[in-house]
Amino acid sequence: MAGLSARSLSGLPEIRAGDDLAALIVRATDGELRDGQVLAIAHKVVSKAEGAVVALADMQPSARARELAAEQGKDARTVQVVLDQSREILRASHGVLICRTHHGFVCANAGVDASNAAATSAVTGKTGAGEAGETVIVLPRNPDASARGLRARLRELTGVRVAVLVTDSFGRAWRHGQCDVALGCAGLQPLDDWRGRRDGVGRELQATWLAVADAVAAAADLTRAKDSREPVAIVDGLQRFVTADDGPGACALLRPLEEDLFR
Amino acid sequence: MAGLSARSLSGLPEIRAGDDLAALIVRATDGELRDGQVLAIAHKVVSKAEGAVVALADMQPSARARELAAEQGKDARTVQVVLDQSREILRASHGVLICRTHHGFVCANAGVDASNAAATSAVTGKTGAGEAGETVIVLPRNPDASARGLRARLRELTGVRVAVLVTDSFGRAWRHGQCDVALGCAGLQPLDDWRGRRDGVGRELQATWLAVADAVAAAADLTRAKDSREPVAIVDGLQRFVTADDGPGACALLRPLEEDLFR
Repeated sequence: MAGLSARSLSGLPEIRAGDDLAALIVRATDGELRDGQVLAIAHKVVSKAEGAVVALADMQPSARARELAAEQGKDARTVQVVLDQSREILRASHGVLICRTHHGFVCANAGVDASNAAATSAVTGKTGAGEAGETVIVLPRNPDASARGLRARLRELTGVRVAVLVTDSFGRAWRHGQCDVALGCAGLQPLDDWRGRRDGVGRELQATWLAVADAVAAAADLTRAKDSREPVAIVDGLQRFVTADDGPGACALLRPLEEDLFR
Repeated sequence: MAGLSARSLSGLPEIRAGDDLAALIVRATDGELRDGQVLAIAHKVVSKAEGAVVALADMQPSARARELAAEQGKDARTVQVVLDQSREILRASHGVLICRTHHGFVCANAGVDASNAAATSAVTGKTGAGEAGETVIVLPRNPDASARGLRARLRELTGVRVAVLVTDSFGRAWRHGQCDVALGCAGLQPLDDWRGRRDGVGRELQATWLAVADAVAAAADLTRAKDSREPVAIVDGLQRFVTADDGPGACALLRPLEEDLFR
């Protein structure tokens, strides 16, 4: 098989609401984008560019938010943001809320994140609020649409057809630590389904169903240090998974509610 | 940050019980191993070399195995193997048993796998049994010990200090498809803990705790096609996570029972 290589992109400025993220990426790559590459982009910069940042000063915590916050030792305004982002709270324990977001992602705190939130970011639908420490970043409203938009804009600017992933770090129910997964995806086959095909000795591959987009997200995350401002990784060697059309997106990775054994 | 590259290793023969897997890998690499590389090895070949293969003809299914098998449309002898490998069955649904293995891994069917089981493999503790289709591969008894043993033997044969991962493909509770994770690990820091450290703007990184070994396993899996016999991937560019000593192993990735919110 072809080899895989990945590197993080340096030289991106701090991203602000309304920024043309694709143009900033193109400038940072300095003409190095090639057909068939995959760009894995940490959702934080996508969220910031889209203004998916909430000023805590604007939040009025509900009784439920105050109760959960007291129970879990969290800030009630942040908990209100988490509740607003969630369709369902699966568990509340150890200071963590395990949520199903409106998109359908099951993750800690609905992906709401205070780290790396710039003090000067814009607030959702408003301006002027948000002192240092007083904003949180939420997930993009539609990460597949974000990925498609970035892909189209990158093509417009460069003529190059890359795939785009929008990623986040998710914890795992039974394992310590986090791995990056794909929240959004355009131009990359999200899953590679070998179920029903035959292996090298002719036996059926019963459960081989590779989550390509998540594996790429995990690989990309290994190229950056967490304290660096390198939200974009460029991955080569995956041309066989890169498609001409945008494809089904990362929503194809969501297990439907009726198959959830762990609600 | 440094770039990452990975490639799969071709030229490994079919592995049989008792094989010196490290020596076969060294021969296939043709002198190309370097200090600081990570070898991600699919557990199947480790299990085969260790004789962790069970002949179904030897299994006497218990009443519980027969009941679960009938309920889930599975082979009762295979279910017995799954039960033998498990400390606890968390869920039985959709033809899948979600198990906690004796090691503590939570995964489908306790990692018991009929695909790629060679017809001629040895059986655990016995010989002579096992026609085509009649053997299943189980997880290594102690994958961290397997990784340490392979690492030591690779060093003995080549003088080179690589890290070794023993990997398997795990499904995820809320996402379709599978990603490879580390069952065993030697010489690689399994987790990179940034919790409590500061990000680029001085804010505390609340939940940044990278599962390095799992991310490497996922990246490595992207270098091979499922129908090829390429169980070994070599990963470069992760020297910062490669350690002189063997380290805590992949058991450090297991979330302890008392923190499990989804039993």
